[in-house]
Amino acid sequence: MNQAEGESSDNNSSYITISTENNRPPPPPLEVHQVCLPPPRTTFQKLKNKLREIFFPDDPLYLFKNQTSRKKLILGFQYVFPILHWAPAYNLKLFQSDLIAGLTIASLAIPQGISYAKLANLEPIIGLYSSFVPPFIYTVLGSSRHIGIGPVSIGSLVMGSMLEEVVSSTEEKDLYLRLAFTSTLFAGLFQAALGLFRLGFMIDFLSKATLVGFMAGAAIVVALQQLKGLLGITHFTSRMEIIPVLKSVFSMTNEWTWETIVMSLCFLVFLLTARYISSRKPNLFWISAAAPLTSVILSTLLVFLLKSKLGDVTVIGNLPKGVNPPSVNKLLFRGPHLGLAIKTGIITGILSLTEAIAVGRTFATLQDYQVDGNKEMIAIGFMNIIGCCCSCYLSAGSFSRSAINYNAGARTALSNVVMAITVLITLLFFMPLFYYTPNLILAAIIISAVIGLIDCKAALRLWKLDKLDFLACFCSFFGVLLISVQTGLAIAIGVSLFKIILHVTRPNTTVLGNIPGTQIFQSVNRYKNAVRVPSFLILSIESPMFFANSTYLQERIVRWVREEEERIRENNESDLLKCVILDMTAVTAIDTSGIDAIFELKKTMNKKSLKFVLVNLVGNVMEKLHYSKTLDSFGPNTLYLTVGEAVADISSSWTQLP
Amino acid sequence: MNQAEGESSDNNSSYITISTENNRPPPPPLEVHQVCLPPPRTTFQKLKNKLREIFFPDDPLYLFKNQTSRKKLILGFQYVFPILHWAPAYNLKLFQSDLIAGLTIASLAIPQGISYAKLANLEPIIGLYSSFVPPFIYTVLGSSRHIGIGPVSIGSLVMGSMLEEVVSSTEEKDLYLRLAFTSTLFAGLFQAALGLFRLGFMIDFLSKATLVGFMAGAAIVVALQQLKGLLGITHFTSRMEIIPVLKSVFSMTNEWTWETIVMSLCFLVFLLTARYISSRKPNLFWISAAAPLTSVILSTLLVFLLKSKLGDVTVIGNLPKGVNPPSVNKLLFRGPHLGLAIKTGIITGILSLTEAIAVGRTFATLQDYQVDGNKEMIAIGFMNIIGCCCSCYLSAGSFSRSAINYNAGARTALSNVVMAITVLITLLFFMPLFYYTPNLILAAIIISAVIGLIDCKAALRLWKLDKLDFLACFCSFFGVLLISVQTGLAIAIGVSLFKIILHVTRPNTTVLGNIPGTQIFQSVNRYKNAVRVPSFLILSIESPMFFANSTYLQERIVRWVREEEERIRENNESDLLKCVILDMTAVTAIDTSGIDAIFELKKTMNKKSLKFVLVNLVGNVMEKLHYSKTLDSFGPNTLYLTVGEAVADISSSWTQLP
Repeated sequence: MNQAEGESSDNNSSYITISTENNRPPPPPLEVHQVCLPPPRTTFQKLKNKLREIFFPDDPLYLFKNQTSRKKLILGFQYVFPILHWAPAYNLKLFQSDLIAGLTIASLAIPQGISYAKLANLEPIIGLYSSFVPPFIYTVLGSSRHIGIGPVSIGSLVMGSMLEEVVSSTEEKDLYLRLAFTSTLFAGLFQAALGLFRLGFMIDFLSKATLVGFMAGAAIVVALQQLKGLLGITHFTSRMEIIPVLKSVFSMTNEWTWETIVMSLCFLVFLLTARYISSRKPNLFWISAAAPLTSVILSTLLVFLLKSKLGDVTVIGNLPKGVNPPSVNKLLFRGPHLGLAIKTGIITGILSLTEAIAVGRTFATLQDYQVDGNKEMIAIGFMNIIGCCCSCYLSAGSFSRSAINYNAGARTALSNVVMAITVLITLLFFMPLFYYTPNLILAAIIISAVIGLIDCKAALRLWKLDKLDFLACFCSFFGVLLISVQTGLAIAIGVSLFKIILHVTRPNTTVLGNIPGTQIFQSVNRYKNAVRVPSFLILSIESPMFFANSTYLQERIVRWVREEEERIRENNESDLLKCVILDMTAVTAIDTSGIDAIFELKKTMNKKSLKFVLVNLVGNVMEKLHYSKTLDSFGPNTLYLTVGEAVADISSSWTQLP
Repeated sequence: MNQAEGESSDNNSSYITISTENNRPPPPPLEVHQVCLPPPRTTFQKLKNKLREIFFPDDPLYLFKNQTSRKKLILGFQYVFPILHWAPAYNLKLFQSDLIAGLTIASLAIPQGISYAKLANLEPIIGLYSSFVPPFIYTVLGSSRHIGIGPVSIGSLVMGSMLEEVVSSTEEKDLYLRLAFTSTLFAGLFQAALGLFRLGFMIDFLSKATLVGFMAGAAIVVALQQLKGLLGITHFTSRMEIIPVLKSVFSMTNEWTWETIVMSLCFLVFLLTARYISSRKPNLFWISAAAPLTSVILSTLLVFLLKSKLGDVTVIGNLPKGVNPPSVNKLLFRGPHLGLAIKTGIITGILSLTEAIAVGRTFATLQDYQVDGNKEMIAIGFMNIIGCCCSCYLSAGSFSRSAINYNAGARTALSNVVMAITVLITLLFFMPLFYYTPNLILAAIIISAVIGLIDCKAALRLWKLDKLDFLACFCSFFGVLLISVQTGLAIAIGVSLFKIILHVTRPNTTVLGNIPGTQIFQSVNRYKNAVRVPSFLILSIESPMFFANSTYLQERIVRWVREEEERIRENNESDLLKCVILDMTAVTAIDTSGIDAIFELKKTMNKKSLKFVLVNLVGNVMEKLHYSKTLDSFGPNTLYLTVGEAVADISSSWTQLP
């Protein structure tokens, strides 16, 4: 240690003397290190760096580094068409797994397709069309191996509610259908654009907390809508909010038919029980997978056999046979409803994307492979763009179907192709069999599917951990339930953003004290053994300094100083306050208002004859303070790398001077 | 140092071995400190604390601590009526200063009052009324000693443009006047409410950068509007944007009158020269203070004497004599325009408040006294609430008038009373003298006043220091100029908030290295002498972890690890990566998405068999990670107070184990 001590005396540093109860040895001598500016970069370099972090945080081209151009070409193709990754190594064993999984999800996809189309106020057949074409496209372009492609409940609900608000699906059937295809197109364009322009991070703004509330609210809205089918009501409100729906239900008691109600209850109990069993024992996944098709078959048979007695039970009726007809000619590119189609497309597009990406990531993590959010967006976008030209409406990846796909042992996206072919066979040959399928069974299937979206445990966790997250969840839940789907979503995003802003507006400032015998400075509130260093007030600022908090921070720091002076006066301490140290480690950014605040603080401290010291300025903050000439007013010995060095060096300068 | 070494061996710590070129001594031994939770607090305590920081950051009641109840009563009165602070000690000497300053600002206030009323499309007399009553109220309630009270240019402009958009000031004169009073009432109510509910921080969201752009844009809009008066045009567009205004000017060349243009130019040059001289030599402030009144008198005389030859020059005409008539009966509380009045009130209220508070703070800092933002809001709010009942429209504190007040030597708010009495005398006796005052001189006065709002230097500083601040400035400037005043403002606030969100969405992560011979860890990019510690990857996260960045941070950290492993492989280094340390000092908050990200990262590191360590968890982050049970998965020796302790302790555990 001699050498260190010798060095220390050269470097004008000394021991720190701290009043501690226990007799610890003084901390070792310190050398003071020069604070330096980060290496200079031009505006263009900074911008380039910033843009790279915004749009290419995953460095997508890293695979291409140091490769031959032939290899680069292959990698390029594989990058654009992920199918080229796994198709060459595809074998019979993989196909066996995919076949079983594909058939399993097909048994779910057919009844769900019909039901979800109903939810979007579309013909049931559109739901089947949408389970046929999109899976093929996803298989070529998508990178998730377990996602189950097809119509989704939330997307269908939101599209249905937004379009129905303006155009009646029963009175202006053709216009409604055209709008549905057009908004699917815009959803696809928007999704693909997000992916192509690498704006995938936009979906992060729908926080999990928001989604928990939104999904639960939407699930209840959807479930209430199904009361129409479950009770057999024919004249039902077209509104979505809870109050008019309940009013409509109870004012129409004369339309309730007991046959429908009894059948509904039986099948609902059956479906929910199947769901419950599978959720308890994941290896019994096939029970909940098979339940919807089973109930469709059972109920159809029942109605067919008892049609004389069950005349009041409404049935699906005639469905056209055959594959998807083209629908390019149905797309609208002008007219008064174009804005509506675009708006619906964007909202349903981002909502279904959020679910699909979350699903993809979840299963990718379980099986330890990567899903690239931006690429997924392109795949889902193209799926919808091509889909809307062949009579498909919005499709994406739903959580329930993907979970069953995963549990059924799917190994590649080919299970979706198997499902699509099964749907095709149904479309070609089995459509007449659905004639006697009662509408109530569709309602029951929808309810049993959306009930899983209500996640009370997650809401409880939010309440326990983060009250503001819970508030976002709460707002989106009641927003959806009481006002409207879009408003609920807007409120929730607003609350989420407000949370960030609030954190920045009123950041913490903490008084630091020294842990005796060390160079560690920690919050005196949290660490009972941390002691204030006499003559120093050491504050740590826990936020970037922006216009939204610079006035606050400035006034708060002045108040800390005032309170410290009062404390010293009240306790009759001998050491007066001589130096204020700001630990700027957490001040990771500063804007011009922040710079002004630092400058004003320096002036205030000068007036009070207090030394004002900044510690550990982060690179860009240091740069800005330097180039704004604010640091010029600080003079020597006012910038340090650590609080320890600052305290040691400043107190040594006091002992040297009289 | 023997004792310290003895202690170190007890505490299971060791020297750090770092590969350094220079032969520095190894750093001193380290003791490992326990990381502990902050003292437990109930939800209620946390909420109370948070609310106190949001609404009472300045601890307004600190003066009342430890006082007798008699003293508390006096302090309470003084708190509500700041006049009680200075009035008892008022003396003749102070009055002499205030008298001179009051007369000086009166000479400015009279022509400006008339002009600004014109700007708001109101009768000139309303401008004088508004310079009479409000100053009295401010003197009793306000705490700034130098602010000059009266109508302000930006407030007048915005009110004029917002009301004129819906109601024509020439065709529906009475309704327009009623709306002006009503929106003044709502402005006052909003301002007082902001102060009473201690929401003063809301004005911080109008950042300086935004205001620089907004003010400059508004100044140009105002100046262009004055072309009507300067050129003598009678048929002029009622729109505010630059393009229709310029079109209107050049399509009406037949209405230009050369007498008006020549007079306008002369007086404009005179006013601008006076302004320039005073801005260069602050002690010649009286030149720019007296110039407007001088030009009013000169131009009025000129028109009066040459009235036969200057027939084309439009004049103000007849103005009623007498003090403010009551206007309570003119306030609108129902009808289709109520919404407009409320909106106008809120926008003009917050804009004029922003200027007034900034003015108050600026001069308070110069003279070293305190101005309480919330109290100022209450004062200005009440001033407008009472004002609108006696024929005053929106008034606040303008920068130009306050600067002259300050330079003229004002000592207390009484200079405003002197000004108000001078205005009263004018109202009572001199109104007929304004009959021949040409409108062009009002236009010239407005232009010379608003030209000071264009602050190119400030814009240049923004460009140099912070490109995003400049963008906010740029957007508000062109928003106001090309679209509309409200849109410009909305865009600017949007850009400012977006800036905060962007910073949080893509935070920096920095690789830290050790500065040889110390316990300091700093960015390896910035400090060339900082060296990476073999087998460790030390990352510092420079932002709170929120839903908006948790996915990004998770993926970015995984990418850092991948890149570090590649680097080691390429350089054929012998020490493989064994431990990832996250320095969480700047992670000052975390939400549920952030907690999930940490948990996922832990799982990823486990799969890669890497030790994953968190360092310096801030109080509330520690708490949340603890209560979410995330820390349970971390096991022992994974939380440290400092990076130095973490590196020392972990590498010592490796040397102990084979």
